[in-house]
Amino acid sequence: MTRALNFNAGPAALPEAVLQEAQKHLLNFNGTGMSVMELSHRSKDYEEVHVGAQQQLRKLLAISEKYEILLLQGGASLQFSMIPLNLLTKGKIGHYVLTGSWSEKALKEAKKVGPTSILASSKEDQYRSIPSIKIEQLEGDGAYLHITSNNTIYGTEWKTYPSSSIPLIADMSSDILSKRINVDQFGLIYAGAQKNLGPSGLTVVIMKKDLISTPPDHLPTMLSYETYSKNQSLYNTPPTFAIYLLKLVLDWVESEGGVEVIEKRNQEKAKLLYDVIDKSDSFYSGHAKPDSRSNMNVTFTLPSEEKTKEFLHLAQEKGFVGLNGHRSVGGCRASIYNAVPVDHVAQLAEFMKWFQVRS
Amino acid sequence: MTRALNFNAGPAALPEAVLQEAQKHLLNFNGTGMSVMELSHRSKDYEEVHVGAQQQLRKLLAISEKYEILLLQGGASLQFSMIPLNLLTKGKIGHYVLTGSWSEKALKEAKKVGPTSILASSKEDQYRSIPSIKIEQLEGDGAYLHITSNNTIYGTEWKTYPSSSIPLIADMSSDILSKRINVDQFGLIYAGAQKNLGPSGLTVVIMKKDLISTPPDHLPTMLSYETYSKNQSLYNTPPTFAIYLLKLVLDWVESEGGVEVIEKRNQEKAKLLYDVIDKSDSFYSGHAKPDSRSNMNVTFTLPSEEKTKEFLHLAQEKGFVGLNGHRSVGGCRASIYNAVPVDHVAQLAEFMKWFQVRS
Repeated sequence: MTRALNFNAGPAALPEAVLQEAQKHLLNFNGTGMSVMELSHRSKDYEEVHVGAQQQLRKLLAISEKYEILLLQGGASLQFSMIPLNLLTKGKIGHYVLTGSWSEKALKEAKKVGPTSILASSKEDQYRSIPSIKIEQLEGDGAYLHITSNNTIYGTEWKTYPSSSIPLIADMSSDILSKRINVDQFGLIYAGAQKNLGPSGLTVVIMKKDLISTPPDHLPTMLSYETYSKNQSLYNTPPTFAIYLLKLVLDWVESEGGVEVIEKRNQEKAKLLYDVIDKSDSFYSGHAKPDSRSNMNVTFTLPSEEKTKEFLHLAQEKGFVGLNGHRSVGGCRASIYNAVPVDHVAQLAEFMKWFQVRS
Repeated sequence: MTRALNFNAGPAALPEAVLQEAQKHLLNFNGTGMSVMELSHRSKDYEEVHVGAQQQLRKLLAISEKYEILLLQGGASLQFSMIPLNLLTKGKIGHYVLTGSWSEKALKEAKKVGPTSILASSKEDQYRSIPSIKIEQLEGDGAYLHITSNNTIYGTEWKTYPSSSIPLIADMSSDILSKRINVDQFGLIYAGAQKNLGPSGLTVVIMKKDLISTPPDHLPTMLSYETYSKNQSLYNTPPTFAIYLLKLVLDWVESEGGVEVIEKRNQEKAKLLYDVIDKSDSFYSGHAKPDSRSNMNVTFTLPSEEKTKEFLHLAQEKGFVGLNGHRSVGGCRASIYNAVPVDHVAQLAEFMKWFQVRS
């Protein structure tokens, strides 16, 4: 069976080796006669998976002991609320940079909790770029500065991160582990797993320990970071199978040579597609401005709605999956996360060239 | 490979046929060349899984169109907060019956939201029984009456449900789908999936439509039932693989003959163990009072701590998994959810008899 040419934006392609490993042991993990799904979350066998995933992530991203690695549920969407509920304490301001729909949603949830401010936004530019920001404009007593490091819908990505006196918080759902980062620059990093880390239903939070504090009295236990921190993310039953897959994906990254190797491969993959766009004499137009282009999501349109439709239709016939742009913006989008093989991206580049020639 | 004799309290045994089906298609679901985990949650292939799971549950429990079936994350623990946050509106009282640690936790979260009252409790009786309640004692303007239908830790289970003028809410995490119920008796039923429905990381909520309303302004979007109801539980990315397994488990229940057949089998399984306890001349003591015994979790102790330890040790050697009582109460517990085969329970009954004879 041939694997699909999967360019889904998330849930997305997983490494074939990871799926094969999971398949092989699905009814008998580690000689237990049980699936990972059937293990008690308090058992030694599962503990090795749970702690192993945390340790492997710590190693791959060189996360110091000043940070906790928390495993949660609810997706990035729940983090949009948990962040202000835990960190937007009385008298403080949550600062947001808007670079797309996900930042907007994060801001919307924060507004329910306390005062916020928009430090910068590229909305008027149809979110084609990462705005330049002036840190000196951070007014008042800031609780944190929130950014979305990669914008799946618009195809833009932060290249360098802002530095200020308040904790930097990044929604890295769609580019975590795609490149080396200096975790010390951040107060908190969060990511839904379903792009670069594993299946949906799992959220990873990397949080500076000194930001974790006793929550306000009325905060639901499940919305307090302290609950997860105090209980090794085992206060209640975690999504054990998703965490097992996270561990397999992280082990796969290590076996490929680590984040540095993955980063180079991602640059190579992105270049294959952006080169086609740039050399197409405007047949393909990239949505993102070149200096803000994402290496994870390549967004583009064709000369007309009709041509775009024809392209997507023919692509689908040829076996390319998930090339439709997000329903909110249309156009085309190729999501080329870590697990998408170079060869699949090369096939897409060839298809794009072929389609242009025949048009 | 022999399957383990799995008596885990949850995550727990899954039907072997379900795991085999999941294994077979793990890299290629429905001819897509992708795992279910790799499908877009907006794709037609996934939609069939998602809606299919909801429809199958509706059919198996004969849930009328007056109810919504919602698929969430966060476990029952998050429901402890979502219920009062959505339903404990101003001026109303949340009524709770305490039958164990989980009801206590549910109450604790409700207290953060608004006024509560304890209608009845069997705490002074070490939670050995389901207390009798006097509905006429429901004072004030009740928002709802909350019960835990089965108490995993203490091994008790409600046999009939109370009826009153306010909505009845039940945490059915550990006995949903184990027997026929009349859903019309309830305002809301919720269940973490990891006992009778599937893997951990998925919560099912069956909610009367007329209880779903526009939430208070400040409620996080992800904590509003309306968000899930309005968006077919697809507001954000759901735990797609867990929902796929839910569908497989539900299809398995149907293929076994439906809930009625499962219910009879569960009674038979529970009788095997309770008979050993009752005929052991007090060698084995059941924790629960006979009229409150759970058909899902059989809890018992031996004449001494030492004997209990020896029993658990030897049981483990013979391949029985998960017989330790909950860390909060000790003793022994055999969890015999839907997927635990009669034969495994029979083997445990034989082992218990053998152990008594040799002692």
